[in-house]
Amino acid sequence: MIPRYTPKDFGDLWSSKTRFDVWLEVELCACEALEDHGLVPKGTAAAIRAKNIVIVPSRVDEIEAVVKHDVIAFLTHVEELAGAEARWLHRGMTSSDVLDSSLAVLLTRAADMLLERLDKYIAALSARAREHVYTTMMGRSHGMHAEPVTFGVVLAGHLAEAKRGRTRLIAARSEIAVGKIAGAVGTYAHLNPEIENAALAKLGLLPETVATQVVARDRHAAFFSAMALIAAGMERLATNVRHWQRTELREAEERFTRGQKGSSAMPHKRNPIVSENLCGLARIVRSAVTPALENIALWHERDISHSSVERMIAPDATTTLAYMLDRATALVEGLVVSAEGMQKNFDLTGELCFSEAVLLALVDKGRPRQSAYELVQRNAMRALSGDGTFQANLASDPDVTALLSESELRRCFDLQHALRHALAIVDRSIAAP
Amino acid sequence: MIPRYTPKDFGDLWSSKTRFDVWLEVELCACEALEDHGLVPKGTAAAIRAKNIVIVPSRVDEIEAVVKHDVIAFLTHVEELAGAEARWLHRGMTSSDVLDSSLAVLLTRAADMLLERLDKYIAALSARAREHVYTTMMGRSHGMHAEPVTFGVVLAGHLAEAKRGRTRLIAARSEIAVGKIAGAVGTYAHLNPEIENAALAKLGLLPETVATQVVARDRHAAFFSAMALIAAGMERLATNVRHWQRTELREAEERFTRGQKGSSAMPHKRNPIVSENLCGLARIVRSAVTPALENIALWHERDISHSSVERMIAPDATTTLAYMLDRATALVEGLVVSAEGMQKNFDLTGELCFSEAVLLALVDKGRPRQSAYELVQRNAMRALSGDGTFQANLASDPDVTALLSESELRRCFDLQHALRHALAIVDRSIAAP
Amino acid sequence: MIPRYTPKDFGDLWSSKTRFDVWLEVELCACEALEDHGLVPKGTAAAIRAKNIVIVPSRVDEIEAVVKHDVIAFLTHVEELAGAEARWLHRGMTSSDVLDSSLAVLLTRAADMLLERLDKYIAALSARAREHVYTTMMGRSHGMHAEPVTFGVVLAGHLAEAKRGRTRLIAARSEIAVGKIAGAVGTYAHLNPEIENAALAKLGLLPETVATQVVARDRHAAFFSAMALIAAGMERLATNVRHWQRTELREAEERFTRGQKGSSAMPHKRNPIVSENLCGLARIVRSAVTPALENIALWHERDISHSSVERMIAPDATTTLAYMLDRATALVEGLVVSAEGMQKNFDLTGELCFSEAVLLALVDKGRPRQSAYELVQRNAMRALSGDGTFQANLASDPDVTALLSESELRRCFDLQHALRHALAIVDRSIAAP
Amino acid sequence: MIPRYTPKDFGDLWSSKTRFDVWLEVELCACEALEDHGLVPKGTAAAIRAKNIVIVPSRVDEIEAVVKHDVIAFLTHVEELAGAEARWLHRGMTSSDVLDSSLAVLLTRAADMLLERLDKYIAALSARAREHVYTTMMGRSHGMHAEPVTFGVVLAGHLAEAKRGRTRLIAARSEIAVGKIAGAVGTYAHLNPEIENAALAKLGLLPETVATQVVARDRHAAFFSAMALIAAGMERLATNVRHWQRTELREAEERFTRGQKGSSAMPHKRNPIVSENLCGLARIVRSAVTPALENIALWHERDISHSSVERMIAPDATTTLAYMLDRATALVEGLVVSAEGMQKNFDLTGELCFSEAVLLALVDKGRPRQSAYELVQRNAMRALSGDGTFQANLASDPDVTALLSESELRRCFDLQHALRHALAIVDRSIAAP
Repeated sequence: MIPRYTPKDFGDLWSSKTRFDVWLEVELCACEALEDHGLVPKGTAAAIRAKNIVIVPSRVDEIEAVVKHDVIAFLTHVEELAGAEARWLHRGMTSSDVLDSSLAVLLTRAADMLLERLDKYIAALSARAREHVYTTMMGRSHGMHAEPVTFGVVLAGHLAEAKRGRTRLIAARSEIAVGKIAGAVGTYAHLNPEIENAALAKLGLLPETVATQVVARDRHAAFFSAMALIAAGMERLATNVRHWQRTELREAEERFTRGQKGSSAMPHKRNPIVSENLCGLARIVRSAVTPALENIALWHERDISHSSVERMIAPDATTTLAYMLDRATALVEGLVVSAEGMQKNFDLTGELCFSEAVLLALVDKGRPRQSAYELVQRNAMRALSGDGTFQANLASDPDVTALLSESELRRCFDLQHALRHALAIVDRSIAAP
Repeated sequence: MIPRYTPKDFGDLWSSKTRFDVWLEVELCACEALEDHGLVPKGTAAAIRAKNIVIVPSRVDEIEAVVKHDVIAFLTHVEELAGAEARWLHRGMTSSDVLDSSLAVLLTRAADMLLERLDKYIAALSARAREHVYTTMMGRSHGMHAEPVTFGVVLAGHLAEAKRGRTRLIAARSEIAVGKIAGAVGTYAHLNPEIENAALAKLGLLPETVATQVVARDRHAAFFSAMALIAAGMERLATNVRHWQRTELREAEERFTRGQKGSSAMPHKRNPIVSENLCGLARIVRSAVTPALENIALWHERDISHSSVERMIAPDATTTLAYMLDRATALVEGLVVSAEGMQKNFDLTGELCFSEAVLLALVDKGRPRQSAYELVQRNAMRALSGDGTFQANLASDPDVTALLSESELRRCFDLQHALRHALAIVDRSIAAP
Repeated sequence: MIPRYTPKDFGDLWSSKTRFDVWLEVELCACEALEDHGLVPKGTAAAIRAKNIVIVPSRVDEIEAVVKHDVIAFLTHVEELAGAEARWLHRGMTSSDVLDSSLAVLLTRAADMLLERLDKYIAALSARAREHVYTTMMGRSHGMHAEPVTFGVVLAGHLAEAKRGRTRLIAARSEIAVGKIAGAVGTYAHLNPEIENAALAKLGLLPETVATQVVARDRHAAFFSAMALIAAGMERLATNVRHWQRTELREAEERFTRGQKGSSAMPHKRNPIVSENLCGLARIVRSAVTPALENIALWHERDISHSSVERMIAPDATTTLAYMLDRATALVEGLVVSAEGMQKNFDLTGELCFSEAVLLALVDKGRPRQSAYELVQRNAMRALSGDGTFQANLASDPDVTALLSESELRRCFDLQHALRHALAIVDRSIAAP
Repeated sequence: MIPRYTPKDFGDLWSSKTRFDVWLEVELCACEALEDHGLVPKGTAAAIRAKNIVIVPSRVDEIEAVVKHDVIAFLTHVEELAGAEARWLHRGMTSSDVLDSSLAVLLTRAADMLLERLDKYIAALSARAREHVYTTMMGRSHGMHAEPVTFGVVLAGHLAEAKRGRTRLIAARSEIAVGKIAGAVGTYAHLNPEIENAALAKLGLLPETVATQVVARDRHAAFFSAMALIAAGMERLATNVRHWQRTELREAEERFTRGQKGSSAMPHKRNPIVSENLCGLARIVRSAVTPALENIALWHERDISHSSVERMIAPDATTTLAYMLDRATALVEGLVVSAEGMQKNFDLTGELCFSEAVLLALVDKGRPRQSAYELVQRNAMRALSGDGTFQANLASDPDVTALLSESELRRCFDLQHALRHALAIVDRSIAAP
């Protein structure tokens, strides 16, 4: 989390203020549930709520410097502010009951904020895919011209991937929407499962199936993995934009705003910096996965090695992903698409992209596949090396004309036929869950 | 995949023989679908099937050495074996149609074989959790004695985690049970979606929503992540076994077989080598996640950089995970549990594990939480440093006795009460999906 | 970089203020070199220096919001502050000349600050290793009692590892002490190698052998790897401390400060939280290695995908490592070592740790190795299962007494003999470079 | 290690046969040193050597299935083959003395085999860099045309990076050329440092400064990091080749061999499959770094969790890197360079690549930098959008002509001047260590 890459709402979410507010809310919800079960005097939570206390983070830090324990420091400060009543807070609970339930609240909020952004990204991709359903583009495999696609189909692929990311994030959100009010080692020694259920329900959480001192960390690792997958999807799109914008391609480019400068040395530059930024940040989001996996194998009922890791990767990964989604959405919405540029590149390889159609026509006429292949390759390679056009070469090759009439050959070079399923493909991705 | 860590069925699954058999099956299923749509003469696939051809992997390699393309080499060899009919195979398809649909077949098979093993692991954990639902054990946080748990509850935690792993693997399996018969760049230029649907259905697969030349690689990355999470769960269990077996704990140990030797130098050694092995192998399964994520951002309609990666990590990660599941299941089934050892360690800290109960009793009597805390800590630390027992210290501390009667104090030290929810917790994990 | 884990000097190092100050210094050093080569009027840099301008980071941000380019925004602001003279700055240079040379300055400063801390860590380990050169401790392999060591030898192992880390960090420092004043694509189109040499020498840097637009990123990846190795060394030490402090071992423990509290629920807890923190943070430092490696393969003369990554991992990894070194040094210095606890555990396995000596004595007397092994194992396992002591069992085993006299057997159990090389080992690590 | 990516010499190196041969050699060298120190009867090793025994790997496996310990199985088999004498082998040693010293022998051999290949790769890059020192190429940053470079300079950058990789590998080789003959927990209880020194010297190894039961694993992690850096360098080159070969660029392409086929569907394809393969395999080599780092923090005097990891990543990473070096060398040697294609792309952006020269000329004439920038940008953007050529636009812009005469303007567009340092740069990389 550095200011440059931190959307405001995520800055707020991961502030000390929000953290302590959520801790207090967890303590109060637990207190209310304890009251309902007669373990704490009725009205305790209400009385504390009525005081509208305001946690002073710096004071908590001050106390922590002595007691070396963040939750105890927090509770001490709450007692300072709320008075004697506060001694009932945290009854039968352990720090991790507060910390892990709070983390669950914060991460589910983060997930919701991410899902909202993801929906916008998806909407942007849908709109542009539909817009360009018939914009012809050369398909490339290995970076080499292959067969025709449309730009809409290409975006539809990114759309379908983003939707899969959304499905995974929803699943991962439900995995981390799990708290724990089960006491020191998860046995409810001074609590019971009903209290936990009631307290967590107020917070929008379910209880951990079997807690140790903490909520199990495989849940969090799954969440980080889901985020890395979404980031990787944007990395793929951004990589493609960087290709499309290359000087030699100029098929699509990032919106260049008024006043923007591309290079301190070269005034002629207009660079795909948003896309490059997305590629870099995908590495950051990805880099949280391994530490999250390493956090799982805690010793016995828990050790606290995971804590420092999560203090860093939880804000970093969620915030960076949010920032990426914001930028990627703007990138897609503002992408300047050049149908003309696409056509110009399409024409570069003459009609070589129809070589497969010729191959199939020859096979249909009885030529064995591998020998037909060599026949087509021979004429294609001549064209590639500048000797005639592909169609003309074929038309003057007696081995070809022996099998294909002029009109049969011509039919192999039908672009519209090649792209006849484009709309169905785009529709399929828009209809996908 | 090294022989040492390769279960036989996984050795077979990832053999050249199986790979080519699956390729042929994909080609034949596609051929049948093409026949139904009139693009290939009826009976072609049946005629080839009737020949019962046997692919010779070394011959495919030989051809590939010239053509530098594995699928073309394969098809050339099939033509050698099956004759002219074979020219109809692969009609309108691209190599990736075969390769990715085959990979989906192989990975779903692997997933099924893993799920079968995972079920056994889950069954073993269930049985042992139930067996030890009331076996008292000291709970530890930070490696330090905390409060009582039972061994059954501990295993129930591992059980619940394994079940979450199962749920994720099932989801990931459905993500990679997706093939593609859509031609060079996924546009069905010489095919159509119905043919794809029909062909893939025969193989137990669904079609990719929007293919490029390949099935999208986020699907595979999700699969590798799911495997890493299962491995991490076993790593956590194995780490705990290594702790329990320590010379100073001796609470549980791996079954030591007749004839086994622990050390070449020290004849007295019995080491938790299975568990250590599991910890190491979890690193291997985990190490596949990042390259799988790096494989996602392919250029344009695909580049082939993912291929070499998958040739290595797909067999390695699935096989290693299978081997781990086999060993972990045997580990759990054979684990020699020492209730006596657990009791002995439990007694080490006298009754300090009941300190929270005393704390709560003092708070109930009106003492502010933080001051009650210091009161208890004072008596605990005296006991820890060898000065008196905890309960006796408390009983002779006037600040305590001013608030708690002898019987009230005694009630704080009730083990059975502390563990009253053990069965409910174990049941919850056994009932979990 | 979160405040909790940020030593003050690293907070300053990575502040906007320091960054812009270094940028300005790079521009001025380059300007002076350009003056000496007649490309910029003599006295330009001196005149700007004389103005003592103070960069206002927020103003740079403001301009960047329009021009979308950080270095141009910076230069514009410098022109605002320093006037017309400033137009000579950056002459013939590209942004990366400033950015990469500045990064080199910042990273070498970070490296120096880390090396200073590493020296303190090394000094602490040396002192404690020497102090405990003869403090007997049970050596453990697989977590099981093996043969005797001394605590000094154990610390000497950590010391030797820290020194290797130091050697690697010095090498890595020299790899990133490399800048670049070579223009847009590294060709000195408007500069020359002499200017670069002179400018960089003022900054304590050498020129990149062959620059693209940037300094090559393998240098930085090597630096991050070197840091991860140092972190891993502390992780190993911290893992051991966590073992030693376990309730069942109590061989050494972290200093517990007055007022410190171990658990919000359990007043009796004293946890190894520093060591756990170190283990977690080692994962963070390690997680920077893969993105740093992914940053290497930039496109052509560079893309800017590495930039966002480095904005995060460079401060994070260096700062976290500094924080770790501070804590690890305090941990070592303050470690409360219990020779008594070590002795108590040592005695747990009777004299089984001498089993190898018996084995060798039997082999010396002509017994084949594997059969001698079984003979010793038989008596060890009896002792382990509570049946007699190891030495007594051997003394009453006729197969043993047939070969070894009473005194020969007794000589096998000589602790002092076993540890006779302890001092030499500790000295070796202290003498190591 | 899969056959497809395994050079023959690496297949041999990592075979069971070689492993057991090295184990035997370690045992015999240790035996000789023990003889010299009177701990084993003179002539023992010589007598065993004289028997020329041939280890049968399958027999070792058979024994291991019972004893569950590989080194004990090996020694048992050696006793079977060599008779009673063999009981002297392994005297006072522990398995890790053999295993780790053997691993050091194998890894240093691997390092030497890698260095030999790296030298060939370096030689290939040197030759091609020199060949193309003056072949003009458009430099690109962000994938966009920037300023001129030469192909020789570009290759020189890759050359310098490969040489840094070589330097790091040599350093890493010396780090893992370290063995250990120090007994169970590294204390020489039944040995002494002189014996270790003598035995290891015969094997070309130095002793570990302070061993635990094993050689410290930070050494190995450093070795894996060094390999990942070399792989990343090839990944960068391969990424560039993939760009150069793109249909739209055609500046350089992989040698296409007679008979080679690019696509099963598209007979016109010639794909950069070697380069794509290198990019994928770099991910594999990189993926070994994190598990190697995770292997460092072994418990106490060692646990054996690292062992399974190394059984997989040691052969995999070294072999894959060797394969990559072979392919990359052939790639560089065979690269078909098209100066014509480079010129054609160079001309695409007219003379925009000289925009910086114009900017500097304007600044020299007194125009403030940022305003000069806007002046140049204005004319460049007009040209980019198809309105006039850049030079002509400038020549007709009164704000420009007010400052620059026609000949001054023309001098800004001097390619030869821009590239005057090309030879010096290439020479610098060839001269670098």
